[in-house]
Amino acid sequence: MHLEPTVKPKNKNIGRLVVKCSDKPGIVSAISHFLYKHNANIIESSQYSSDPEGGTFFIRIEFHLNDLINKRKTVEDNFAPLVAKFAMEHYFSYGDQIKRSAIFVSKETHCLLELLWEWQSGDLETDIALVISNHETARSTVESLGIPFYYIPANKDIRAEVEAKQIELMKEHKIDLLILARYMQILTPHFVSEFPNKIINIHHSFLPAFIGANPYERAFERGVKLIGATSHYVTNDLDEGPIIEQDIERVDHRDAVVDLKKTGQQVERRVLAKAVKWHLQDRIIVKNNTTIVFQ
Amino acid sequence: MHLEPTVKPKNKNIGRLVVKCSDKPGIVSAISHFLYKHNANIIESSQYSSDPEGGTFFIRIEFHLNDLINKRKTVEDNFAPLVAKFAMEHYFSYGDQIKRSAIFVSKETHCLLELLWEWQSGDLETDIALVISNHETARSTVESLGIPFYYIPANKDIRAEVEAKQIELMKEHKIDLLILARYMQILTPHFVSEFPNKIINIHHSFLPAFIGANPYERAFERGVKLIGATSHYVTNDLDEGPIIEQDIERVDHRDAVVDLKKTGQQVERRVLAKAVKWHLQDRIIVKNNTTIVFQ
Amino acid sequence: MHLEPTVKPKNKNIGRLVVKCSDKPGIVSAISHFLYKHNANIIESSQYSSDPEGGTFFIRIEFHLNDLINKRKTVEDNFAPLVAKFAMEHYFSYGDQIKRSAIFVSKETHCLLELLWEWQSGDLETDIALVISNHETARSTVESLGIPFYYIPANKDIRAEVEAKQIELMKEHKIDLLILARYMQILTPHFVSEFPNKIINIHHSFLPAFIGANPYERAFERGVKLIGATSHYVTNDLDEGPIIEQDIERVDHRDAVVDLKKTGQQVERRVLAKAVKWHLQDRIIVKNNTTIVFQ
Amino acid sequence: MHLEPTVKPKNKNIGRLVVKCSDKPGIVSAISHFLYKHNANIIESSQYSSDPEGGTFFIRIEFHLNDLINKRKTVEDNFAPLVAKFAMEHYFSYGDQIKRSAIFVSKETHCLLELLWEWQSGDLETDIALVISNHETARSTVESLGIPFYYIPANKDIRAEVEAKQIELMKEHKIDLLILARYMQILTPHFVSEFPNKIINIHHSFLPAFIGANPYERAFERGVKLIGATSHYVTNDLDEGPIIEQDIERVDHRDAVVDLKKTGQQVERRVLAKAVKWHLQDRIIVKNNTTIVFQ
Repeated sequence: MHLEPTVKPKNKNIGRLVVKCSDKPGIVSAISHFLYKHNANIIESSQYSSDPEGGTFFIRIEFHLNDLINKRKTVEDNFAPLVAKFAMEHYFSYGDQIKRSAIFVSKETHCLLELLWEWQSGDLETDIALVISNHETARSTVESLGIPFYYIPANKDIRAEVEAKQIELMKEHKIDLLILARYMQILTPHFVSEFPNKIINIHHSFLPAFIGANPYERAFERGVKLIGATSHYVTNDLDEGPIIEQDIERVDHRDAVVDLKKTGQQVERRVLAKAVKWHLQDRIIVKNNTTIVFQ
Repeated sequence: MHLEPTVKPKNKNIGRLVVKCSDKPGIVSAISHFLYKHNANIIESSQYSSDPEGGTFFIRIEFHLNDLINKRKTVEDNFAPLVAKFAMEHYFSYGDQIKRSAIFVSKETHCLLELLWEWQSGDLETDIALVISNHETARSTVESLGIPFYYIPANKDIRAEVEAKQIELMKEHKIDLLILARYMQILTPHFVSEFPNKIINIHHSFLPAFIGANPYERAFERGVKLIGATSHYVTNDLDEGPIIEQDIERVDHRDAVVDLKKTGQQVERRVLAKAVKWHLQDRIIVKNNTTIVFQ
Repeated sequence: MHLEPTVKPKNKNIGRLVVKCSDKPGIVSAISHFLYKHNANIIESSQYSSDPEGGTFFIRIEFHLNDLINKRKTVEDNFAPLVAKFAMEHYFSYGDQIKRSAIFVSKETHCLLELLWEWQSGDLETDIALVISNHETARSTVESLGIPFYYIPANKDIRAEVEAKQIELMKEHKIDLLILARYMQILTPHFVSEFPNKIINIHHSFLPAFIGANPYERAFERGVKLIGATSHYVTNDLDEGPIIEQDIERVDHRDAVVDLKKTGQQVERRVLAKAVKWHLQDRIIVKNNTTIVFQ
Repeated sequence: MHLEPTVKPKNKNIGRLVVKCSDKPGIVSAISHFLYKHNANIIESSQYSSDPEGGTFFIRIEFHLNDLINKRKTVEDNFAPLVAKFAMEHYFSYGDQIKRSAIFVSKETHCLLELLWEWQSGDLETDIALVISNHETARSTVESLGIPFYYIPANKDIRAEVEAKQIELMKEHKIDLLILARYMQILTPHFVSEFPNKIINIHHSFLPAFIGANPYERAFERGVKLIGATSHYVTNDLDEGPIIEQDIERVDHRDAVVDLKKTGQQVERRVLAKAVKWHLQDRIIVKNNTTIVFQ
C-alpha cells in the first residue's frame, strides 16, 4: 500500500487564520487589508455573526503566501495590533505543520478502518502518531501500515494508571487531536481537561436521543424509523459536548437490534471521518456548547 | 379546482385482509389456499414474523375479486374457521368503503395544506368529512374545497366541553381517522381512549429527542445538525405513541430558531402525509409500542 | 388566508452587492473597506474563486445600512471607481425593492401550489404579479389569492402571437423573474432572449439523464432506482441551461410509470421552490453553463 | 484480523426458493402448501407481479427446514410437478453452499477495500476465492487476508490472451459471482457471455447520465449538483445492463473534478457493496433490462 507524503507540496505556502471577537464594523476590512498588505492571496473565506447587532463574529480565512515559512513570524507579529484593537481570540495554522493524531479504539474497528482508509487516500491531513487500544483486535491492521500500536488494558479499577500512561504517550508524541473511534471506556474529567476541544468522539445515536448506554437496544424498543450517529467534542458532560456532525440511515420493523447496529456502524464511520477532516482543516469553532463548521 | 371522485373505479373490486396471530407452520398456505378457492387474485402480499421460532406473525394481503360487493359476506363468513384455528386477530377492508377523516388544526396550516393538496391530487383515499380548529385561520381554504369547517375555541379551562363537542362531531360524521395536523391542544386520556390507534399526530422533532415543549428552541440550544419530525399514533403517554414515520433535513450554525422551524415544517408535512397515506391503505399494524409498516 | 406584506420591515435597510471580476489581490480588502467607510455592516459574505491563480472572482455581500433608501445613490456613485479599477461586473439590490414574478403553468399544478404556499408563508420575497396558463385548471386557486390569472391558449401553430401577448404582459407588469412551473410549451429563442438568466424551469429528470420528452416513461424502461428533478435557467439549448438545483427520491421495481411521476412531482416542487428562493435572494451567479449558488 | 467462518451455523438449515412464471391464480397457494407439507417454515417471502392481469409473477421465499442437507434432494424432486404445472423458471439455494466470488480491480482500491471490510465483518456471505488485477497496487492488502492475488497485465492488444487466462481462473476456482470493483478494462462479448447475470459492475455516474468515459469531467462541465453511482449487471451493451442500485451525494460549485471524484468514490463503494450483498442473498431477479430487488 502506497502512503501519501504527509505534506503535500501544494499546501506548503497555505496559511489559515481563525478569529473570534465581538462583532464591530470594520473587522473584515481590517483583516483583508492586513492580508493584502502582506501579499497574501485569500483563497477561501467564511464568516458568521451570531447576531446582526452586538453578536460575536467568527471568521476563517485560508490564504496563499509565497515563502510562507520565512514570513510567518513577521505576519504574526504585525497582526498583534489588530488582535489588541478588536480583542480577538485567534490562531494561525500552516499547511506544512501537519497536526498529529492519536486514535483510541476498543474491539469494533469499523471507525478506525474508515479513518485509515481516508488517511491512506490522502484525505486526512494528519500524521497518525499512534493507536491505543484496550484490545489486541486492531494490532495487525495498524502495524501493517507502520503506525505504532499500544495495547493498554483498561477497566474502571485501574483507570488512574491507564490514563496516566495514555497522557504520557500523548505528550511524548506531541498529539494535537485525540480521536475516540469507538473507545468504550469512560474518560475522567482530569483526562478530558488535558485536551480541551481536542478530543472527538463518535456517539452511536442521533443525540440527544438515546443518551447513555445501549442506544441500539433502546432505539429498537422505541421503534424508531431512522438510526443516527453524532460526532462531538468531548467535555465533562458525558454525551453532551458540542455536536460537530450528525447523520442518519433509514431502518424498518424488520431490523433486529443487530441490524440497527450494523446500519449504525455505516453512519458512525462517515460521521466521525467528516468531523476529523473538518477539525484538521481548522473548520470548526466551538461556541458555547455548539459548533460553527465552515464547510 | 377539480376534485377526484372518492371511489376510483379501479378500487371497486379490491379487498384487503390484515392478520395477526401466533406464528405457526401453515398459515400462509391456509390463507392463500382460502383466497384461491374463492377466486381472489393476490395483488400484493407482505408478511413479517417477529421471530423465526415462537414469534408473532403479521400479514397484509391485497386481492382482486370480481363482484366483491356481493361476495364479501360469504368470504368473511367462510374465513371464520381459519380465524378460529389460528386464533387470529384480523380485519377485511374494501376499496369501495372509503375511510372518513377529520383533521384538527391550530394556527399553522402547512400540514393541513399538504394533506389537502395530496387529497386533491387523488393520493389520499379518504373522505375528509370535516376540519376542526381552535382558530379561524384555515376557514377560507377549507371551505373553498367544500369541506365543513368547525371553529371550536379551546383552552385548558373548557377542555371537557370542547372534547365533548368534538367527540359528538366525530360520531356524527362517522370518523375512522383523526389527524392532528399541528393541533396545539392536549387531548385528555378520555378523548384518546375513544379512538385507539385512530389518531395520528405529527411531532416536531426526531423522537425521542426533544420530547415536550419548544423542541426547536431546544434543538437550537443543543446545536444539532439535523432537524427531524415524527408521525405517530396518539396514546396516553404524551409524545410516546407508536412511531409511524420519521425524517430529517440538514441545518447548520447559520440557522436561527425561526429557520429551524421553517425547515422543520417541510419535514413535518411530508412525514405526516406519509403516515396518513399508509394508514388509509391499511399498511400499518401496531405491535406493542412500535409499528409494522408494509410499504 | 392572511397574506404577508411584501416588504418586511426588517428588510428595509438591507442591501446586497454581487460582484464578478478577474481575481486579483486586494479585491476583498477594497470592497470591505468601501462598505466600512460608508457605515454599512456586513451581515453575510460569500466568495468563490474559480482558480487560486488567474481565475474569476465572485462575491455576494449582504449588508445593513441605516436610512439606506436615501443613501443608495451615494453608495452606488462612490462605488464606481472600484468597478473601474477591477473591471467588475456588479449589481446592487435592495430589500425594499421586491422582485416581481410571473408564473407560467399548464395543467399540472403541484409546482404552482408549492410556490403559492411558500409565498403565503412569507418565504418567497417576491410579488407574484400574474399567472399565465394555457389551461383554466389553476384559475380559481390563483384568483382566490388575489393574483391576476391570464388564460392564453397555446399550440405550435399560434406560437408567435401567444409569445407576443406574453411578452407584452411581462413588460406591462415589469416582471423580473419568470417561473416555468410545469409549463408544457416550447419557448422560442426570441422569447428566451428577452429574459436572459431570468427564466427558471423545472425539468422532470435528473439532468442530463432523460433529456427530452417522456422522462418518466424512459426512466421506467431503464429501471432506474432514483427519480430526480432539476431546476435550471432557460437558454436556447433546450434542457441544457445552467443547473441551479437537483434532488432525487428513491423508487423501486414496484413503481409503475404513474408512481414514478407522483414521486417525481414531490421532487419537482421542492427543487423548483429552492431555485426560485435563491434567485430572489440574489444567491445565484451564472458562470458559463453552470451556476454558483451562495447558500 | 479475525475472519468469519464462511458458513454461519444459523444458516445451515436455511433454503431459498426463487420463482418466475406467468401470473395465474393459485401459485402462492400451491408453493406455500408445498413447503408446509414438507415441514419447511417460511421466514421471509417477497412477491411481485408485473401486472394484476396477465403479468409475470416473481417470488422469493426464505425457509427453515431441519436437516435440510439430507432433505434437499427430496424437496427438489417433489417440486418438479409444480414447476411443470406453472411453467416456472426457478432455483433453490442453500445457506451452507456459500457462493464463490472473484474481484477484478485496477489501481483504485476504494471499492475493493469496502468489499473486504464488509466481508471481514461477516456481512458478505461469500468466499472470496481470488482477486485479479492489472496492477500490483492491491496485492499486499489482499494477500494479508489470505486471499490469492493474481497480477495479469492487460491492454487492448492482448485482450484475448488475458481473458482466456481470466476465464480459466474463474472455472478453476468455480466462481459464482464476478465483481468489477473499478476494473478499468473493457470485457469482450465473449467474456461477458460466459457469465450471464453473474458480473456486477460499478459505474461512476448516475446512469443513464454520463454514459461512457470521463463522467466526472463531464459532470463538472455540466455543473451538476449531485454526484451518483450505479451498480449493474454487465451485458454486452456497455454501461447499459440492468441497474441494481443507485445513490447520490450532494456537491456544489466549489468542487473541482478531483472533489467530484472523491465524493463519487464514497457513493461507489456503498452502491457496489449493496448490490453484491443482495446478489449473494438471491434477492435480485433480472426482468428484461431491469431488476427486481426483494430487499
